[in-house]
Amino acid sequence: MAKDNKKLVEQITSMEEDFTQWYTDVVKKAELMDYSSVKGCMIFRPYGYAIWENIQRDLDARFKATGHENVYMPMFIPESLLTKEKDHVEGFAPECAWVTVGGENRLSERLAVRPTSETLFCEHFKNIIHSYRDLPKLYNQWCSVVRWEKTTRPFLRTSEFLWQEGHTMHETAEDAQEETLRMLKVYEDFYLESLAIPAVTGQKTEKEKFAGAEATYTIEPMMHNGVALQGGTSHYFGDGFAKAFDISFTGRDNQVKYPHQTSWGVSTRMIGAIIMTHGDDNGLILPPAIAPIQVVIIPIAQHKEGVLDKAGELYDRLKAAGVRVKLDDDDTQSTGWKFSQYEMKGVPVRLEIGPKDMENNSCVLVSRVTREKRFVSLDDLEAEVNAMLKQVWSELCERARKNREEKTYVATTHEEFLDIAANKPGFIKAMWCGDSACEDQLKDQTGGVKSRCIPFVEDHLSDICVCCGKKAKHMVVWGRQY
Amino acid sequence: MAKDNKKLVEQITSMEEDFTQWYTDVVKKAELMDYSSVKGCMIFRPYGYAIWENIQRDLDARFKATGHENVYMPMFIPESLLTKEKDHVEGFAPECAWVTVGGENRLSERLAVRPTSETLFCEHFKNIIHSYRDLPKLYNQWCSVVRWEKTTRPFLRTSEFLWQEGHTMHETAEDAQEETLRMLKVYEDFYLESLAIPAVTGQKTEKEKFAGAEATYTIEPMMHNGVALQGGTSHYFGDGFAKAFDISFTGRDNQVKYPHQTSWGVSTRMIGAIIMTHGDDNGLILPPAIAPIQVVIIPIAQHKEGVLDKAGELYDRLKAAGVRVKLDDDDTQSTGWKFSQYEMKGVPVRLEIGPKDMENNSCVLVSRVTREKRFVSLDDLEAEVNAMLKQVWSELCERARKNREEKTYVATTHEEFLDIAANKPGFIKAMWCGDSACEDQLKDQTGGVKSRCIPFVEDHLSDICVCCGKKAKHMVVWGRQY
Repeated sequence: MAKDNKKLVEQITSMEEDFTQWYTDVVKKAELMDYSSVKGCMIFRPYGYAIWENIQRDLDARFKATGHENVYMPMFIPESLLTKEKDHVEGFAPECAWVTVGGENRLSERLAVRPTSETLFCEHFKNIIHSYRDLPKLYNQWCSVVRWEKTTRPFLRTSEFLWQEGHTMHETAEDAQEETLRMLKVYEDFYLESLAIPAVTGQKTEKEKFAGAEATYTIEPMMHNGVALQGGTSHYFGDGFAKAFDISFTGRDNQVKYPHQTSWGVSTRMIGAIIMTHGDDNGLILPPAIAPIQVVIIPIAQHKEGVLDKAGELYDRLKAAGVRVKLDDDDTQSTGWKFSQYEMKGVPVRLEIGPKDMENNSCVLVSRVTREKRFVSLDDLEAEVNAMLKQVWSELCERARKNREEKTYVATTHEEFLDIAANKPGFIKAMWCGDSACEDQLKDQTGGVKSRCIPFVEDHLSDICVCCGKKAKHMVVWGRQY
Repeated sequence: MAKDNKKLVEQITSMEEDFTQWYTDVVKKAELMDYSSVKGCMIFRPYGYAIWENIQRDLDARFKATGHENVYMPMFIPESLLTKEKDHVEGFAPECAWVTVGGENRLSERLAVRPTSETLFCEHFKNIIHSYRDLPKLYNQWCSVVRWEKTTRPFLRTSEFLWQEGHTMHETAEDAQEETLRMLKVYEDFYLESLAIPAVTGQKTEKEKFAGAEATYTIEPMMHNGVALQGGTSHYFGDGFAKAFDISFTGRDNQVKYPHQTSWGVSTRMIGAIIMTHGDDNGLILPPAIAPIQVVIIPIAQHKEGVLDKAGELYDRLKAAGVRVKLDDDDTQSTGWKFSQYEMKGVPVRLEIGPKDMENNSCVLVSRVTREKRFVSLDDLEAEVNAMLKQVWSELCERARKNREEKTYVATTHEEFLDIAANKPGFIKAMWCGDSACEDQLKDQTGGVKSRCIPFVEDHLSDICVCCGKKAKHMVVWGRQY
């Protein structure tokens, strides 16, 4: 048993040794994805896609609870439509995939495979918004988008990825600004409650904001190795697109006005964030809310009389209680192999049941995070399982919070900033003057440390910019990113 | 009230007058879709997309109950991959959209936007199937696909559409053949139980089968006007793709073998089928299982004391009972306008509650199909509403069955066939020799009547082919199609 266990664990590189290789090993060994001959694109295998389905179900309920409706727009954008908003097209045109032949004919106008759908939504909004009574429009779309990438990594950066994009139109700027922050809060709550990831949130600097937006807000979780991942963004557009697309409405005062717009999105990158925030040297660890299997039942000495019957009974009870449970009664694999296998797949709780447990009317629950073993009475099975699932969630949250806090540093001088950037992977809190030239300089000097965001709650670390020494306007959280 | 009612109804063309225009009017007025500047593509508006979400939820549960798992493959297919199976590429290459530019560079190999994903699944199957222990693989994918169409109609034929495609691999030909028929049965059950559409099922002739398949089975509902719609197909591939893609496995006897394959799919065309099977001159009629709103509550004289409170109470009770219910308490619209509006949107049951009903502790339920009014006691609200929803389903099934039976004709001679084809829209049952030349001839002579399928249960109408007079092999159901 110990031997099998060791063998499987040896198949993946340790995090300390090579984090990048560890990540690649985990996504393959946990059977989340596979490569295909389509450059830059990936295959979501059943276990990986099931995580995405759980994410979708959870988020979709949150969107609907806040009044949003789902729609579906075409996947193609004619070039003339994409170029209607100047900043937007500059941001996206260089990374589009272009369809130039349809059927057997060269197209008179080439079509971009959507990199994002603001322009399509705007065209539609123009048709359906005429009066203040038509507002707000609160739309969301689940789809895949394409951004041509040179270097790709599974889930984190692929030429095609799956996401949701919310697009809303409002009567006033205030309504739209409220919506922008409301949806960032929905993301923040989802990250914490469902993904067990406590993340920094705040506003992007002018330089880092979305192409065409007036303001971009972001959620920035830190990965186990101290690198940031832009986990989701919410944009306030003002009436810029509305003007470019000539979308107007008759207001309550009978005057013609432009509506105010938002968009917000999260993607399958979140699966990458889950892996790199929670995983360990034994593989994946999945937060219970989105785990395809929340509890795996492993019968011990399953050839002994009554063991499989009892395991089946516990399976039925947990299933009836709404737990996503799997019973592995495969008799061609050893118990040790199964332990390793479900640890690799990140199943939050393992339930062991064998002849001795049955004598005591109990079973064993094991947390994937701490490996704590708990002997629980079968009388309290459902309550104990739910308690351990909650415990796993809270252990994951705490560990991630601790990691982030330990890897967040304060720099008050330029030297200190460069020293931390060179030697300590993580976030750097430092004051900034508001000039993008300082962002450029810090990025160049550190080989890639960028402003993550101006957090909603800023500390006052000093009066001067950590780069140029001029008067500071904001505290910024800085870091390298995926 | 009567005036308002009339006004709204007048906005759509009657079915008898112009079925095509009626269809276009319904999809627009019921707010199912909108056009966009993307040629051949359509926008799914919230109400239309909500129907698709309900269809997805229902079908997805049926797929999972039969052991299938969801995956997601790339949306692009390199040309060299698409051309690996000869028949397949001949069928699809002429209608592909081709990406030739990625980022700012011309691609060395052009990529088809997937018209269907057999080739991608095969490439993946080659990687993951090695032993009989790896079989069966029972996969499904929800996605959008693109087939470049010259003439398009909302839901029925668009260059991009949404669908599911099942792809499975099996140890033996028998297993794969069973799967092919099992999934056709899943479709047949879904059409009847959830869409209230009783449809003809059977096997496609050699000429009409899917590009690359050994056998194609089909479900063929008849629309109200007698025209057929290919409602879903299930294909048996044998080991043709497996050989072309070099997918093999070690069998139980230690011999290397090729696995046997199936694929099966239904699409957003089904929404077109629902509209054209059930709709009437007042608009859409939705089967309860997939209706976004199953019951709409319209308060009568809602300014009277207690009416809105009571309506809200009924709303809460129905919602708690799991009914998808909407309360329309908008006081800027007349009751008559609301009646027409929800008839247009095809809401299966209307619930009216006013002061008089309250005095009697009752409310009124109205079936969208027959307009039958039923006064029911509020004590039995949930049971009565569920009974009327069931009744609506059964009324729709019966009406569709009757329409199909009335519009199905038997032809035993060539002249009879041509006469029916010219004068009576509907299905024609007629004997056939098995030669595709006869299919071609009948299609040419009738301007488009094609074989729909060889039904699973054939009548013996005569001994000779209705076209050439040679010995008949099968009874075929013939008809025009969307």
